[in-house]
Amino acid sequence: MRVATTIFELRNSLGELLTPIGLVPTMGYLHEGHLSLVSAAMNDCASVVVSIFLNPTQFSPEEDLSTYPRNMERDLEKLDKIGVDLVWTPTPDDMYPTNYQTWVKVERLTQPLEGKYRPGHFSGVTTVVTKLFNAVRPHKAYFGQKDAQQVIVIRQMVKDLNMDVDIQTCPTVRDPDGLAMSSRNTYLNRGQRRAAPILFTALQAARVVYDGGERSAIKLRLLIHKIISSEPLANIQYISCADADTLEEIQDKINGRALLSLAVFFGSTRLIDNVLIGD
Amino acid sequence: MRVATTIFELRNSLGELLTPIGLVPTMGYLHEGHLSLVSAAMNDCASVVVSIFLNPTQFSPEEDLSTYPRNMERDLEKLDKIGVDLVWTPTPDDMYPTNYQTWVKVERLTQPLEGKYRPGHFSGVTTVVTKLFNAVRPHKAYFGQKDAQQVIVIRQMVKDLNMDVDIQTCPTVRDPDGLAMSSRNTYLNRGQRRAAPILFTALQAARVVYDGGERSAIKLRLLIHKIISSEPLANIQYISCADADTLEEIQDKINGRALLSLAVFFGSTRLIDNVLIGD
Repeated sequence: MRVATTIFELRNSLGELLTPIGLVPTMGYLHEGHLSLVSAAMNDCASVVVSIFLNPTQFSPEEDLSTYPRNMERDLEKLDKIGVDLVWTPTPDDMYPTNYQTWVKVERLTQPLEGKYRPGHFSGVTTVVTKLFNAVRPHKAYFGQKDAQQVIVIRQMVKDLNMDVDIQTCPTVRDPDGLAMSSRNTYLNRGQRRAAPILFTALQAARVVYDGGERSAIKLRLLIHKIISSEPLANIQYISCADADTLEEIQDKINGRALLSLAVFFGSTRLIDNVLIGD
Repeated sequence: MRVATTIFELRNSLGELLTPIGLVPTMGYLHEGHLSLVSAAMNDCASVVVSIFLNPTQFSPEEDLSTYPRNMERDLEKLDKIGVDLVWTPTPDDMYPTNYQTWVKVERLTQPLEGKYRPGHFSGVTTVVTKLFNAVRPHKAYFGQKDAQQVIVIRQMVKDLNMDVDIQTCPTVRDPDGLAMSSRNTYLNRGQRRAAPILFTALQAARVVYDGGERSAIKLRLLIHKIISSEPLANIQYISCADADTLEEIQDKINGRALLSLAVFFGSTRLIDNVLIGD
């Protein structure tokens, strides 16, 4: 496994790779969710590149950049073991040198949900993903359904900007009790960790009710709210039932695909999760 | 010469081209300035692609999009004759379909000069150039020094976003009397056309004075202002002496490279021109 830091090293190493190339962009502290993306890439592509970059521009000043977990040594071991061809570990100075001033912005899809509560987040995401795509020039790139809005925003960007990358979405990987894997789960204390699976429990309950014929978005949101509110350690930021394409909140009946999504605090740890329902 | 309209047709045709590929982005109504870019591309590259797209997003509502001159038939004849391999002529709907919502923005370099008087202009430019680059994937791309700030902004964008394109700047092509070639020159009536060379006369005078040892940016701006003001048909919008890298207006002495640039109206026709001075 090659490891490149500067973009110069990256481009040198890329020349030796067989095509098609699959890219798995990560912020490090890799868990089974990340590794499932790598496996999918290895199944589809002749070479797999993983980027590890804790992207500062997708964190707002009051967010958890400084405490975000990292363990580069363990990450590289995991990727080497699984058979990744090339890991790119740029530094913040490689990615955002002095006088950096260019941003890629997706307008409407970034307004609701995560965009509403994390202003500037998606501008950081779309900009860094553009940079990763331009540097690696992958044929396919792999993202987790866990960050549902992120995938939708990136697909829109790829289409709008004529990027020649095939975006693949992989299912959310969960712990046995249903908690979606996330690097941020490491922040949870024992009680919070025991409580956190309530998120998926609530989403699943809504899906069951939907499958039973319920089409009222309001009732599904209420049901999720009721279940999560029953957990004293959970502090709801938002619960959404939105059109899965436009991300506009559904006011009345669900027609077609809907995204049930939420952000909930356990102490100062903010967790997100989602399920897709409908056709 | 192949002509492609949709991005699908473009990608099909690109597969047949030898590399390296040179791209000359244009808005059509081609003149000798454009053709000099094509010649430079033909000298450097195995294949040359010219795009013709009158990009609506770089015009503000009160600007001259609707009256901008066009003559696709004559443009294609010229490009065929000179030996271009592929011309891409997307429609506005190809480039900006329903629900389009992604923009590439360069921050600081787009604030002064053209950016100050044409709000939104550079956002349209950087976005469409990104789309052209992503669609064509050229090794080199050719721009004219006539649009000095545009080249500086595009170079910054390419660097910031890790785009793997070599940006080439070609000298401004002028009519024998010094007027910089521009599709907009066709708007000028006979008297305005006779008066318009005063722009280059004034820039050249400033350059001569600079070469004679004058280093005061204020005095150079004043000299240009004085010469152009002597022409009753000329209506000055701005005259600038700026750092050629940062585009910040020079307040005192010129050190290193400076960009003398201006925008002047003749009737409702807005012309720009510039010269570089210094090392």
